[in-house]
Amino acid sequence: MNSRIVAKIIGVLLILEALMMVPSLIISIIYKEQDGVVFAMIIPLIALVGFLLSKIQCETKLIKVREGFAIVAFGWVVFSLFGSLPFYLSGSIPSFVDAFFETVSGFTTTGASILTEIESLPKGVLFWRSFTHWNGGMGILVFTVALLPKFGVGGFQIFKAESPGPVVDKIAPRINDYAKILYKTYIFITLLQISLLWFAGMNLYDAAVHTFGTVGTGGFSTKNLSVGAYDSPLIQMIIAVFMVVAGVNFSLYYALYKGKWSMVVKDRELRLYLGIVAVATFLITLNISPLYGNMLESGKYAFFQVGSIISTTGYATTDFNLWPTFSKAMLMVLMFVGGCAGSTSGSVKTIRILVLFKLIGREIARIFHPRAVIPVKLGKTSLQSNTVNSIVSFFVLYLLLFVTGTLVISLEGLDLESSASAVAATLGNIGPGFGIVGPTGNYSGFSDFSKLFLSFLMLLGRLELFTIIALIEPKRWIEEF
Amino acid sequence: MNSRIVAKIIGVLLILEALMMVPSLIISIIYKEQDGVVFAMIIPLIALVGFLLSKIQCETKLIKVREGFAIVAFGWVVFSLFGSLPFYLSGSIPSFVDAFFETVSGFTTTGASILTEIESLPKGVLFWRSFTHWNGGMGILVFTVALLPKFGVGGFQIFKAESPGPVVDKIAPRINDYAKILYKTYIFITLLQISLLWFAGMNLYDAAVHTFGTVGTGGFSTKNLSVGAYDSPLIQMIIAVFMVVAGVNFSLYYALYKGKWSMVVKDRELRLYLGIVAVATFLITLNISPLYGNMLESGKYAFFQVGSIISTTGYATTDFNLWPTFSKAMLMVLMFVGGCAGSTSGSVKTIRILVLFKLIGREIARIFHPRAVIPVKLGKTSLQSNTVNSIVSFFVLYLLLFVTGTLVISLEGLDLESSASAVAATLGNIGPGFGIVGPTGNYSGFSDFSKLFLSFLMLLGRLELFTIIALIEPKRWIEEF
Repeated sequence: MNSRIVAKIIGVLLILEALMMVPSLIISIIYKEQDGVVFAMIIPLIALVGFLLSKIQCETKLIKVREGFAIVAFGWVVFSLFGSLPFYLSGSIPSFVDAFFETVSGFTTTGASILTEIESLPKGVLFWRSFTHWNGGMGILVFTVALLPKFGVGGFQIFKAESPGPVVDKIAPRINDYAKILYKTYIFITLLQISLLWFAGMNLYDAAVHTFGTVGTGGFSTKNLSVGAYDSPLIQMIIAVFMVVAGVNFSLYYALYKGKWSMVVKDRELRLYLGIVAVATFLITLNISPLYGNMLESGKYAFFQVGSIISTTGYATTDFNLWPTFSKAMLMVLMFVGGCAGSTSGSVKTIRILVLFKLIGREIARIFHPRAVIPVKLGKTSLQSNTVNSIVSFFVLYLLLFVTGTLVISLEGLDLESSASAVAATLGNIGPGFGIVGPTGNYSGFSDFSKLFLSFLMLLGRLELFTIIALIEPKRWIEEF
Repeated sequence: MNSRIVAKIIGVLLILEALMMVPSLIISIIYKEQDGVVFAMIIPLIALVGFLLSKIQCETKLIKVREGFAIVAFGWVVFSLFGSLPFYLSGSIPSFVDAFFETVSGFTTTGASILTEIESLPKGVLFWRSFTHWNGGMGILVFTVALLPKFGVGGFQIFKAESPGPVVDKIAPRINDYAKILYKTYIFITLLQISLLWFAGMNLYDAAVHTFGTVGTGGFSTKNLSVGAYDSPLIQMIIAVFMVVAGVNFSLYYALYKGKWSMVVKDRELRLYLGIVAVATFLITLNISPLYGNMLESGKYAFFQVGSIISTTGYATTDFNLWPTFSKAMLMVLMFVGGCAGSTSGSVKTIRILVLFKLIGREIARIFHPRAVIPVKLGKTSLQSNTVNSIVSFFVLYLLLFVTGTLVISLEGLDLESSASAVAATLGNIGPGFGIVGPTGNYSGFSDFSKLFLSFLMLLGRLELFTIIALIEPKRWIEEF
């Protein structure tokens, strides 16, 4: 591997990270917080490290598959290490492992927290905490929509055929164009939500922070009760709708903007995604209505929680840990669905679930036509067998990691429900699970080992598994498998 | 569908069922039980119904795929309906739904029971209860080893290449030969285990009943405490070893008999199966050793429970519901593995798990060699893509049924652990799960609807899912999928 080019590019990324911290410094100054000093010290430090790394001389500028994965994977880890400095140095999070966990959770837009008391923390630090969601979300958009299809890993090559925006393969400038479109869409949605929340009565600071958590499908709040702290049904509904919106393939918004309505209406993944949201909301509403007295109230709670879990955001307006088993089981299922590919959401992604369903249909058809070659179709497009294989492998690996992770975490001695949901919620970049990691709980009770392990799962989930696995993998082992 | 031929063949099967009840009649007579009258009445009745059906005139004797599946699926249902008569008419199980559940559980070799008090039941009835396991196990051997590979469903076509016995495709007489070999092996193992248990101090009746539960990987016992009622470590070990033995591909025993040692040693599925048993036993032993004081005692309990769950038998020597979370999670994972294909065990089967693992390896290899066509290999044999697709579809459908089943059962209002494990334990033909369906619990607390639903899951699991799905499926729907 050409490690010089990897270090060089990570250097450039660190300069970016230093810039990302500037808004938090400004917030600290506005609110006259002492922690402004921390940001004022860290920003030049990170910028300097980045500058020095970026000056590394490379003989060849060639980035091959392995280097590409290394930049992405190490980039996230280095980002998280430096990103945890504001928490640690300001004393907001006294343990470095905790600070690292919180930062990984932020950048991966997971939203799992080790904080037991949020509201007393300085506003600059909390702004940084949520801003990691927003920046992480942006990074993911480019990564999963522009880069992964090129590598052809995990089934994202589907987008070569499917994405209604500019075609993403072929040449580099197109990727840049496409990335710009995604950024613009992302920023537009962000500004829209901040405005709406402000209009609905939130102060500007809270509106920004909760928007970062929403559009990045992260879930960090400034309130101990999460979005449940806001009584206003309008605020809750705005966030609920934008969570669902953030779980949609962003290139569809571009298609909308270009007036290509039919592309949006015909999108199979979008249909399934919204269908699942509707059905799950309906069934949970019926199931929890005895709890909240009337259907309207129940429907409101059901929609918010469903939108939050399927988009892998993790905000909550009620303690769904206290819901009847059916509703909890339904949320647990949604944890393994996730939003659409090409969104900021995590987990398996609706498109993969759709393709897996199609495989069952094909097998049944094959019983009656044993000799027929039956392709897997999305709309009118037949999927290549490599794409289908990638999706299947992703899903199997995802389950394998879930199972292995649950076994590891179960050594903490928690109940099975807490252990399994903690793993599902970190691997799927969701945040809260059930039991002690439920919406009123947090991850502070885990050992340092488990916190680092869960951080690793968050990165694995975020980087679509194979990115990291490919790095860990000794090549010999692969060939002998 | 040619329903006349289906009815005709089910008629023949019913005559067989009447014959199967004769041993229970004899047991009733030996123990001078009044229930002998019940058997004496039912046997001619069932034989008569069977005889009348078998006399149906058919213009064509052609059995196509759909008819084949119909015979198997309806055959099991009709068998279970008539098989529940002894329980119901003797008054041993006053509710017909309960009696049906118990019978389906018996024939599918699940071993899930609605009985809260077993020991007071008549010996003839209990003999019938366990004899259903033994007959069910025999039916499964022929079904999964001789018939399914021909249909090419669920990945069992693997055996066309893999089975070390006579090649099973091509012509009918070969299937018959192969079935005979399986029967002989099955009967030999049965007689061996009965002898060993008798030798170890069990009475002949209990030895027979527990052997039926073991070799059929069923799990019905004559004791409320299951095998835990026997203090003898020898008895417990014999049953533990035979559970693991019953989970092995039966054609390997034939290979052993023929002196083809290398075939057995090189069998990848067997290696993985025994490997999982060893690793799981080792890890659980470490985990539960504080509970039982010493490693030997813990190892004994761990091995028995691991062998019981992975072979999908369901006997217990201790209440593993009280084990630490790690051990419970490990058993839960084993519930989704199952024994080897070509055994009497249920669940996913080790060979499918093996192939799924290989898919991950192939995907990683493809990252580095994007243009290479990399086959999935078992030993030196490359698997056909149809076989791999079948296995993937089976696995996805299995998970889908597990998830849907858990949602349905969670409406009973039990905790998530009980609901999910009840579904995993019935779909996987295991028997006990966790919580209220744990080894000291049973299925009596479920509503009639849930009992019928769980019975349906047992049949689905037993018939390798697609058999029944293919029947339910309206053809139009398949084509429009």
